[in-house]
Amino acid sequence: MINNSSKRVAIIGAGPSGLSQLMAFVTAEKNGAEIPELVCYEKQGDWGGLWNYTWRTGMDENSEPVHGSMYQYLWSNGPKECLEFADYPFDEHFGKPIPSFPPRAVLYDYITGRAQKNDLRKYIQFNTAVKWVSYDEASHKFQVVTECFDDNSTSFGDFDNVVVATGHFSTPNVPYFEGIESFPGRVMHAHDFRSADEFAGKDVLVVGGSYSAEDIALQCHKYGANSVTISYRTAAMDFKWPETMDERSLLTRIDGRTIHFSDDSSKEFDAVLLCTGYKHHFPFMEESLRLRCPNILYPEGLYKGVVWNDNPGVMYLSMQDQWYTFSHFDLMAWFARDVIMGTTELPDKAARTADIAAWRAREDALEDAYGMIDFQADHLRDLAQTTDYPSFDIDLTAKEFKQWKGHKSRDITTYRNEPFESPVTGTMAAVHHTTWLEAMDDSMEAFMAEK
Amino acid sequence: MINNSSKRVAIIGAGPSGLSQLMAFVTAEKNGAEIPELVCYEKQGDWGGLWNYTWRTGMDENSEPVHGSMYQYLWSNGPKECLEFADYPFDEHFGKPIPSFPPRAVLYDYITGRAQKNDLRKYIQFNTAVKWVSYDEASHKFQVVTECFDDNSTSFGDFDNVVVATGHFSTPNVPYFEGIESFPGRVMHAHDFRSADEFAGKDVLVVGGSYSAEDIALQCHKYGANSVTISYRTAAMDFKWPETMDERSLLTRIDGRTIHFSDDSSKEFDAVLLCTGYKHHFPFMEESLRLRCPNILYPEGLYKGVVWNDNPGVMYLSMQDQWYTFSHFDLMAWFARDVIMGTTELPDKAARTADIAAWRAREDALEDAYGMIDFQADHLRDLAQTTDYPSFDIDLTAKEFKQWKGHKSRDITTYRNEPFESPVTGTMAAVHHTTWLEAMDDSMEAFMAEK
Repeated sequence: MINNSSKRVAIIGAGPSGLSQLMAFVTAEKNGAEIPELVCYEKQGDWGGLWNYTWRTGMDENSEPVHGSMYQYLWSNGPKECLEFADYPFDEHFGKPIPSFPPRAVLYDYITGRAQKNDLRKYIQFNTAVKWVSYDEASHKFQVVTECFDDNSTSFGDFDNVVVATGHFSTPNVPYFEGIESFPGRVMHAHDFRSADEFAGKDVLVVGGSYSAEDIALQCHKYGANSVTISYRTAAMDFKWPETMDERSLLTRIDGRTIHFSDDSSKEFDAVLLCTGYKHHFPFMEESLRLRCPNILYPEGLYKGVVWNDNPGVMYLSMQDQWYTFSHFDLMAWFARDVIMGTTELPDKAARTADIAAWRAREDALEDAYGMIDFQADHLRDLAQTTDYPSFDIDLTAKEFKQWKGHKSRDITTYRNEPFESPVTGTMAAVHHTTWLEAMDDSMEAFMAEK
Repeated sequence: MINNSSKRVAIIGAGPSGLSQLMAFVTAEKNGAEIPELVCYEKQGDWGGLWNYTWRTGMDENSEPVHGSMYQYLWSNGPKECLEFADYPFDEHFGKPIPSFPPRAVLYDYITGRAQKNDLRKYIQFNTAVKWVSYDEASHKFQVVTECFDDNSTSFGDFDNVVVATGHFSTPNVPYFEGIESFPGRVMHAHDFRSADEFAGKDVLVVGGSYSAEDIALQCHKYGANSVTISYRTAAMDFKWPETMDERSLLTRIDGRTIHFSDDSSKEFDAVLLCTGYKHHFPFMEESLRLRCPNILYPEGLYKGVVWNDNPGVMYLSMQDQWYTFSHFDLMAWFARDVIMGTTELPDKAARTADIAAWRAREDALEDAYGMIDFQADHLRDLAQTTDYPSFDIDLTAKEFKQWKGHKSRDITTYRNEPFESPVTGTMAAVHHTTWLEAMDDSMEAFMAEK
């Protein structure tokens, strides 16, 4: 067996992915392996990544860009069963079946519950930002420069591996639209959205065609916006929107309060919410180690979606466009661990490149959402093959994602009321005491109450 | 004469201070001196620093923190005569006398006019952020790591001197107030304020006791806010506010829309604007070179307010709490140039430390605004002693600052209508065709029009 105790691994970020990485190592240690020294750097003051809600926007209390894009009143937009940890079921954490679409606080409690139970905090240096990661060809080590905001100290550490787990929902992509500089109301990216309350009574334009646009538009409707219009670039979401909501083609020009669309329609708005996506942004990685990619299911350059092909000492976790989340992160982290510890041997670069190319070609040929779900389920299955992550019913989760798509098509305001079956325990979810459209309080207390 | 042509100087930032530094060197060259190689790094796509208005907030198009805090409808809040370049009078740039309180676009035109005339653009690398500056004891050189966003390249350069000219109005200081996380309207720092239009008809709370609070509160009033309340921590500004404006003591607690103050009063608000200042923030400087200071007239550790005492190869420009601006920046830049080029010899560290201490003691003993004006005027005089910056009537500017204070006390809504005399040319300013309170259009065209 390979002795890993002299190795040092830097994990950047203590959100869901970073915590998955720590869990992977801690699990190996419980199973008798010698694990490397682990140092997890987290620029925020606490763990949970974007699930660690902050009211701040722009720069945080340490004058670093605010990490989170989380907002008040966020309920899960996919069934919790499709993200369940296989080694820590919802049943175990909550002691009873809970509904399938919990609000933020409940999911935060679940993620951090596993971290607490496994004493992961001891590996994490909070209020510490990674400033620069470079590779030294001579020593085959990575130098990691960090700044700790507690004592304003800069540190330099040498590591055998670096795991980048900083997420890809922190750096807003903000397009320019003609006239936006003189729109007289609020212009905001989804990254800065904190509460729909601000838009009660307002005519709101949401620009975007994906999950943020869908959910923020619905939030604004739910919390009292006068009207909500969604402007899309490529395709309408085409849900059966409530009466005060509609979709229009791309906005072409802003003229004072009046906004023009490519279908030649126009309307006056009070606020413009740019739900125009995020950039994969790793300014702390030297160029040769830096992933640059669009938000797709299988980013170029990552073997098995994880290993930086040009320098396999670097791992990127969870940089995919995500259907699955936490369980997928776990599988990637378990795989990364096995590569780092030498229990999984990497093929040579040519073979890795060919493997990536095959997945890329398959993704490029995908035609619809069902195809994407099956593709990502296959990615999970591929990772599961070689790791000892507990098995769970991936077939069921893929089926459930498709059911969920159907529920959304039927009624975008009621899909969150549906219960799903756990792929880990087989437990059927509870039905919530209040439908989502009527549930205004997003606290854990309100959600968990027997009513 | 010392040959400086083999020296390399990095200037960080192409705002007013960085441009002053380039001007200082270019002027020496015109006068026959051999000047060092100059490389000015500017993370924005154009020059002008915070005067280069952007509609963006949060992160910029290169995913760097937005530099500027500039907003629409900003008119100078001090007489332009008190910031006039001695080598480039307003008369020369505009060809006629203009009023004393121009809007942003006019001052931007003035600053960049001198830069254009002197062909300063050739020294500047735009879209290039400085990531890290460190000092090598062995070579006595500074290593400057930069990232260029045009081609995503990282570069490493060695320099004999580094001039930090990145300003101190970019990194917001955002205090926490109890209940702020659930205030149902917009919560925003002044850094993100772009237009008062958004607050028309609203009840606005402005938190802060200095220039940002004063000016943003007045803007909101001018552009139609229903009411504007200013909450102060230490002292009321105590101007004769218009009827719909008032000042209250510090806010103690936010409860939904209702905000409570330390005088036990409370009021409902639609928006909270935190005009709570900025941090001096230089995350790209290694700790031994990093200035950390409050916003004062004579920051600790800077000899003559410019030279980093612990390592005199580093200059910081314009890190003072500012009464004077552009002419003060020029004097600092001329002094920095003379030190870098060896035409001004620095005393030893003990003498420098004593000199700083004397100024610090004098600042600590200041009792009022007049004292501060005289103190900063003396700082200008001190710098002027040894440099060849063209002389101008500093006595007159100090007198004008005091007159301006009087005008503000008399009526905060009319002080910008007063004309002042140029300390460079003796020209009396024009009286504007429209009073500030009625001038809604802040364009250069509207301002320069004969009406």
